[in-house]
Amino acid sequence: MRVLLVGAGGVGTAVTRIAARRDFLAHMVVADYDPARAEAAVAALPERADRFSARRLDASDAEAVRRVLVEERCDVLLNATDPRFVMPLFEAALAAGAHYVDMAMSLSVPHPSAPHEECGVKLGDEQFARAGEWERAGRLALVGMGVEPGLSDVFARYAADELFDGIDEIGVRDGANLTVEGHDFAPSFSIWTTIEECLNPPVVYEKGRGWFTTAPFSEPEVFDFPEGIGPVECVNVEHEEVLLIPRWVDARRVTFKYGLGDDFITKLKTLHELGLDATAKVTVPGADGPVEVSPRDVVAACLPDPATLGDRMKGKTCAGTWVKGTRDGAAREVYLYHVVDNEWSMREYGSQAVVWQTAVNPVIALELLASGAWKGSGVLGPEALPPRPFLDLLTAYGTPWGLREEPARS
Amino acid sequence: MRVLLVGAGGVGTAVTRIAARRDFLAHMVVADYDPARAEAAVAALPERADRFSARRLDASDAEAVRRVLVEERCDVLLNATDPRFVMPLFEAALAAGAHYVDMAMSLSVPHPSAPHEECGVKLGDEQFARAGEWERAGRLALVGMGVEPGLSDVFARYAADELFDGIDEIGVRDGANLTVEGHDFAPSFSIWTTIEECLNPPVVYEKGRGWFTTAPFSEPEVFDFPEGIGPVECVNVEHEEVLLIPRWVDARRVTFKYGLGDDFITKLKTLHELGLDATAKVTVPGADGPVEVSPRDVVAACLPDPATLGDRMKGKTCAGTWVKGTRDGAAREVYLYHVVDNEWSMREYGSQAVVWQTAVNPVIALELLASGAWKGSGVLGPEALPPRPFLDLLTAYGTPWGLREEPARS
Repeated sequence: MRVLLVGAGGVGTAVTRIAARRDFLAHMVVADYDPARAEAAVAALPERADRFSARRLDASDAEAVRRVLVEERCDVLLNATDPRFVMPLFEAALAAGAHYVDMAMSLSVPHPSAPHEECGVKLGDEQFARAGEWERAGRLALVGMGVEPGLSDVFARYAADELFDGIDEIGVRDGANLTVEGHDFAPSFSIWTTIEECLNPPVVYEKGRGWFTTAPFSEPEVFDFPEGIGPVECVNVEHEEVLLIPRWVDARRVTFKYGLGDDFITKLKTLHELGLDATAKVTVPGADGPVEVSPRDVVAACLPDPATLGDRMKGKTCAGTWVKGTRDGAAREVYLYHVVDNEWSMREYGSQAVVWQTAVNPVIALELLASGAWKGSGVLGPEALPPRPFLDLLTAYGTPWGLREEPARS
Repeated sequence: MRVLLVGAGGVGTAVTRIAARRDFLAHMVVADYDPARAEAAVAALPERADRFSARRLDASDAEAVRRVLVEERCDVLLNATDPRFVMPLFEAALAAGAHYVDMAMSLSVPHPSAPHEECGVKLGDEQFARAGEWERAGRLALVGMGVEPGLSDVFARYAADELFDGIDEIGVRDGANLTVEGHDFAPSFSIWTTIEECLNPPVVYEKGRGWFTTAPFSEPEVFDFPEGIGPVECVNVEHEEVLLIPRWVDARRVTFKYGLGDDFITKLKTLHELGLDATAKVTVPGADGPVEVSPRDVVAACLPDPATLGDRMKGKTCAGTWVKGTRDGAAREVYLYHVVDNEWSMREYGSQAVVWQTAVNPVIALELLASGAWKGSGVLGPEALPPRPFLDLLTAYGTPWGLREEPARS
């Protein structure tokens, strides 16, 4: 299999390190807007680096991306850029006759008059609108194939296939106990994306009612995460799983809650109340007169770059799917999860835990597509494909998943 | 008396409106870096505007200020700029042989190794270091002569002279119940200055120990403000009164607490934890490549300009001095205070309450200097001068002060 990887940031770089250890890959072209980032990712590979090449590519230029896919005879485009570039890369892959894999989905737009009650444009709507073209072309766009969305969706399908007769609720729950030495506050993931996720109206699915939204930070609950992470306050956040899971898995309710913790929630609310989450530019004094800047960019510039924090970070991150339903006539409740310890991912791969956990899942998906264990056409989420081979390969990659049987409540 | 007013912002403009109604003023030159602001202040005066003239002046250029003082034959310079310009204006007045009045004092610098325990350079240190030159010149620099510092210092001296035999503690307490229609969060005073005051280490005075500092937001207490404002959470804040009062008034302890309220305290802490209070520049994307901006300027740009909020503001602001001590062998406790209702200050002067309350006090001081009721040389705080004539004139200006006798506690 020949792959065009677009984006050599934290996640893209971890993708190269994981893929370099696997045999299925014939060649990976590592492309970035900044050619030095692409070259650095390739140069850092300790083994079998001859299968990798670096080049400059502007992800916003769909025609340039299409040309590279054809020139490099790539079977699949793996998108490791931020969600603003989903649509040009998705278009480019279709135009080139390549398969496409991403880790997020096309962006949402809040409802103009009732943003905290009704959906406007939903996450992925733009991609699903093009499903017919992908089907007719016999090509697969596998969307939301990171850890969350991604592995969390595989867990949902696995629960439906093998663990439950009927499902009441599927609740994705994400939490961590990561700390960074020398920083009172240092988010382990892009603050730009975190603000986007957390301040957009969260989306919830209920059978019969369909998708609807709530106010940000709604339905707070304390969830007890496994492997020593412990209880963390979680709130509803807009996330792709809520849009993906109900399309293929039968459940009465689907939610996503993020374990932000009290402190982070307060900080995000404050940024919003002060208008500092805004992307629209404001005018401020510069060295040579007034300049226009986006407040959210200034927030990001004041915090350390999360990709550089791995060696001062301590703790674990957990992604998982909490399922409540019935089995053999009795109530059942399980939490299917995957934990990465930062110390392990730094030692094994030189990548921090959150970034590594995101990156491993699309590499497994590529391997399943290469082997034919996963195949399909159209626009599909991870829960549209058989979960067992994916979960087995995750364990084979040296990073096993877990199942916690909860005491069932009435 | 001929006055050079430097700064035609909110406070400077209110100064012109208050002074225009008084006879003591022969002429006031209204100067600003932006000549349009100076001209607008003069043009807006409804009565006896012939005594006012406008001109452009750069407050950072001490020699230019000195020349204007001489040319315009001014007896006194009134500084209504922000604290960065205290030193050049103070120097210019001394060089021109004029008196000088300001409403803040030269800035502090935290202690390099123990910022939350020991003082570094204190508020006003630079000015007091020059006291001998002012004494030899026979000229007066009256520093900290706004409402807080200013009226609060006059209250302290009044308590010592007329209400107490011995004083245990003098605690300046500032609180308000102002709200702004259409804004969840709209500070009524410059956010730049508020951040500076609140995030610098607060200073406390204790007899025997001298001045020392604490961590920001220390010693929270709920203070019950009069005239319907009610209880507000107050915390220690760095303020000039703590440096001024012990120089002239005998007290065992002097503090300043600002009624920020829970919500504002959380917001300021968050700005600090995210590094958004910083004045040092960060690099962010601009329209034509990277630009350098100060995060604190971006915070200010995201909030409405407090000077423009008067007509949508509701509520009252209170400045005052809480004194605990003994009288005739018994414990006594009083709160001396001054409340301005925004509705009244907008109707009477077209100035919002906080700005108007700051501006009225230096005008009264100028009138006392013009009449000879206040006189002196050197660098003096308001508590160095007799309080009675000041308090009587405050009442005569139509804005009386109050005394609340507290039930004495053991």
